Amino acid sequence: MKNSNFSRRDFVKLSMVGAGALALGGVNAQAAVSSKDVKFDEEWDVVIVGSGFAGLAAGITAAEKGNKVLILEKMGRIGGNSVINGGLFAVPNNDKQKAEGVKDSNELFIKDCLKAGRGLNHVDLIDTIATRAQDAYKLTIKCGVKYIDKLSHLGGHSVPRTVQTTNGSGSGIVQPMVEYFKNLQGAELRQRAKFDEFVLGEDGGVEGVIIRENYKFDSNSLKDDVENTSGEKKTIKAKKGVVLAAGGFCRDVFFREVQDPSITKETDSTNHPGATAGAMKEAFRIGAIPVQLSWIQFGPWACPDEKGFGVGSLFNVNASFRYGISVNPKTGKRYMNELADRRTRAQAMFRVIGTDGNYPINFCDSNGVKALLPEQLEKPLNSGILKKFDSIDEIAAFYKIPADELKKTVERYNGFVKAGKDDDFGKPLDKTTTDGYDVSKPPFYAMRGTPKLHHTMGGIDINTKAQVISLKTEMPIPRLFAAGEITGGVHGASRLGSVAIADCLTFGMIAGENIG
Amino acid sequence: MKNSNFSRRDFVKLSMVGAGALALGGVNAQAAVSSKDVKFDEEWDVVIVGSGFAGLAAGITAAEKGNKVLILEKMGRIGGNSVINGGLFAVPNNDKQKAEGVKDSNELFIKDCLKAGRGLNHVDLIDTIATRAQDAYKLTIKCGVKYIDKLSHLGGHSVPRTVQTTNGSGSGIVQPMVEYFKNLQGAELRQRAKFDEFVLGEDGGVEGVIIRENYKFDSNSLKDDVENTSGEKKTIKAKKGVVLAAGGFCRDVFFREVQDPSITKETDSTNHPGATAGAMKEAFRIGAIPVQLSWIQFGPWACPDEKGFGVGSLFNVNASFRYGISVNPKTGKRYMNELADRRTRAQAMFRVIGTDGNYPINFCDSNGVKALLPEQLEKPLNSGILKKFDSIDEIAAFYKIPADELKKTVERYNGFVKAGKDDDFGKPLDKTTTDGYDVSKPPFYAMRGTPKLHHTMGGIDINTKAQVISLKTEMPIPRLFAAGEITGGVHGASRLGSVAIADCLTFGMIAGENIG
Repeated sequence: MKNSNFSRRDFVKLSMVGAGALALGGVNAQAAVSSKDVKFDEEWDVVIVGSGFAGLAAGITAAEKGNKVLILEKMGRIGGNSVINGGLFAVPNNDKQKAEGVKDSNELFIKDCLKAGRGLNHVDLIDTIATRAQDAYKLTIKCGVKYIDKLSHLGGHSVPRTVQTTNGSGSGIVQPMVEYFKNLQGAELRQRAKFDEFVLGEDGGVEGVIIRENYKFDSNSLKDDVENTSGEKKTIKAKKGVVLAAGGFCRDVFFREVQDPSITKETDSTNHPGATAGAMKEAFRIGAIPVQLSWIQFGPWACPDEKGFGVGSLFNVNASFRYGISVNPKTGKRYMNELADRRTRAQAMFRVIGTDGNYPINFCDSNGVKALLPEQLEKPLNSGILKKFDSIDEIAAFYKIPADELKKTVERYNGFVKAGKDDDFGKPLDKTTTDGYDVSKPPFYAMRGTPKLHHTMGGIDINTKAQVISLKTEMPIPRLFAAGEITGGVHGASRLGSVAIADCLTFGMIAGENIG
Repeated sequence: MKNSNFSRRDFVKLSMVGAGALALGGVNAQAAVSSKDVKFDEEWDVVIVGSGFAGLAAGITAAEKGNKVLILEKMGRIGGNSVINGGLFAVPNNDKQKAEGVKDSNELFIKDCLKAGRGLNHVDLIDTIATRAQDAYKLTIKCGVKYIDKLSHLGGHSVPRTVQTTNGSGSGIVQPMVEYFKNLQGAELRQRAKFDEFVLGEDGGVEGVIIRENYKFDSNSLKDDVENTSGEKKTIKAKKGVVLAAGGFCRDVFFREVQDPSITKETDSTNHPGATAGAMKEAFRIGAIPVQLSWIQFGPWACPDEKGFGVGSLFNVNASFRYGISVNPKTGKRYMNELADRRTRAQAMFRVIGTDGNYPINFCDSNGVKALLPEQLEKPLNSGILKKFDSIDEIAAFYKIPADELKKTVERYNGFVKAGKDDDFGKPLDKTTTDGYDVSKPPFYAMRGTPKLHHTMGGIDINTKAQVISLKTEMPIPRLFAAGEITGGVHGASRLGSVAIADCLTFGMIAGENIG
């Protein structure tokens, strides 16, 4: 898609042969540890791997049932990708929809997900989210999470159904949930504690985990899971079971390239550096079923002028794509429905970018940025990646876009907004989506756009109770649960924006309900 | 894509909970066996799982180096899918191309594969096929395989580069190779011998296998690998290693639906009943890397009026798609490039079929069927799935196609043939592809067409030496090799016709070269 397919893969895979490979190949390549052969250093009811949305929801739900719960976090910082995401949470049939007069249904939500997912979704799992996301939403409110009143309408959703935290970040969910969890009886969240292996019982189910404490993740290593030996080993019993909530693998350079060789080590991602496949691989080694691993999603709303998710992505998510347009600077024309699903948009953007870095320009007017929280506008303006212009001509001059074409494009789009119908790309332009805003009121705000690796659709197969299924028995692996991005099948080929939080919180909560 | 996504998945995955699930979940869910804990009943240098193209190529190559080689075949019949396939083998830069004046190159072959594979291919692996398929072709000739002189031009290939066995079947390759193998010193092919588990050594590498002899595959079971307990256990040492050549999983009802929920248990497949995921799953359990499992290919050339690959598929592969056309019976019009890659064609056909079984009609004239071996015409005629007609009007009347539209379509296509250019769908119509044949010379031959599940693109990750890579170490798992459909990454999203034999024979041969 982007770079040559001839990459480091051969180098990595062929660099060790002969005796050296045998020796190294042997390290930890052995099969799982049996509980007969270990002495446990600690004993808990429930052990959870990962402290993001899924892990916290599982931890709170399990601890409120009276379980002694330990959450393990390998990083020094709590919350993984959850704490740096945009705090956008799709809740079908929520109270704010009723207030705004938006008609939604479980069926419509499922239909939207299936369309984006190219029909590859495990429908039982989306159906579960449709039914239970409300409960997960209430759980967050109980923990003290605050949402703004206005709904967001994200790409691929037929109607606005997305609530947003008041601070415009997932940290607005993670922080209150961490506080809530820590105050529960028998609950502990341990940082720099890296899950290494499972301990299996006589019945083939999970009885505990081997971890390392005082682990120091190495952001400079491209293969931390393989090479990093820091920390001290500890063996922990999990009497009622383990919940894997360790997230996706967008930053696992080796594993992501095996799944999609068009992704090279240079490909930027919105994810935090610890988003590797280590925990998921251990699940495969005890018989979890790998599902749809090659579907790796690019978020179409990032900016090439900063690293990672940065401070610019939310300008596009919340303002430019909904209230403005994206144009190809070479032609001055729109080239996509700015509210299509992520995969459709990312593919359209890559065609514009081509091989010569011809990044699309996303912009909206001063009405459009009203939807942003103050810092969502100030931060990218201050960093210089978002520019302010007094006229369309100024935008054209700055980005070297043919000015006449660009003005024609804006006029044409404004006509579509007036008519409530986009004849060119079918973007939804009804009042609930665009609030009637066209692109006409100066100042204008513009940013270069690019897709970045954002979410790995694939992962471990689970059922609607968040139990991990065994490929050997086709039944649940006793006492093993998983939730969130580490699982696969929910989103199929492509996830809709704001369904990640719904997925993580809902299945985390369900894992907590069913464990023990 | 075809059926409802609400299927048996929930039933299967939720049918056992509580104590029952625990008990059953425990059966064989334990991790791999250590060589310290077993007594070997037999000792071989090399053990190969599977007796199709890949297994035979590996077996012959390994045995010719002086190794004692045992090939295990779980079925009563030798050769898996290889023996029922069409015997079409893509060999870039072969001698017959030179004779026919066809210009080919490694680069063109790789480009064709990458286009069909949507860029997901592991290019190092296709490159290896481009370079070594010639050697695999020579190996088959050494074993006594005979090919017809005329090249085939299959969908998605830029040029004719496919050789075909004289009997128009993969059996024309399998049978001579089996004879050749059996005559080698220290070589044995054992039927009804089912591979169950690996035995691992101290270094984490493979030291042997646990099998069952006198195993009786149960075609009536939808989950033979899980439920079938027939046969007697035997533990076999493989001093120099094991080659997995057990094929794909098109007939594994549970596993294929997990990967692609649009595939239900009713979905027909061209594969033999034993094409399940059992051996591949064992590889995952000792740390093999799952690659691109959700890409499952439909062969677009099957017939809905018979089961499986049947006797009709080769009429479409060799005659109707190359020398004739495929039309939508509702409109009488063509709807695709009949020589596009398989995924493109299958998707176009599913759009025609829709939900009401409106199967496309594939037909050609009496020149078109000249490319068929006698039995490729007689068998489908005798079974009644292929019909013979004296005029286009008769075809229209029989299949209830608007006659005027159909005649217009044929005229238009014949004009394209004359001009050497298909203005509607870009089918290659140069002389080397169509021999100048249009659709005009009675009698005409027609058949209803449908895609059927044919090949699983995904599987185990290997390097160019056919070594299986470990997800734990990112290095080769000592003494474990794999080749053919059980591997993943070669074909990316969609395999071109006749590249399966190239893949299986080439990597089988390479596994045999590198083992021991």
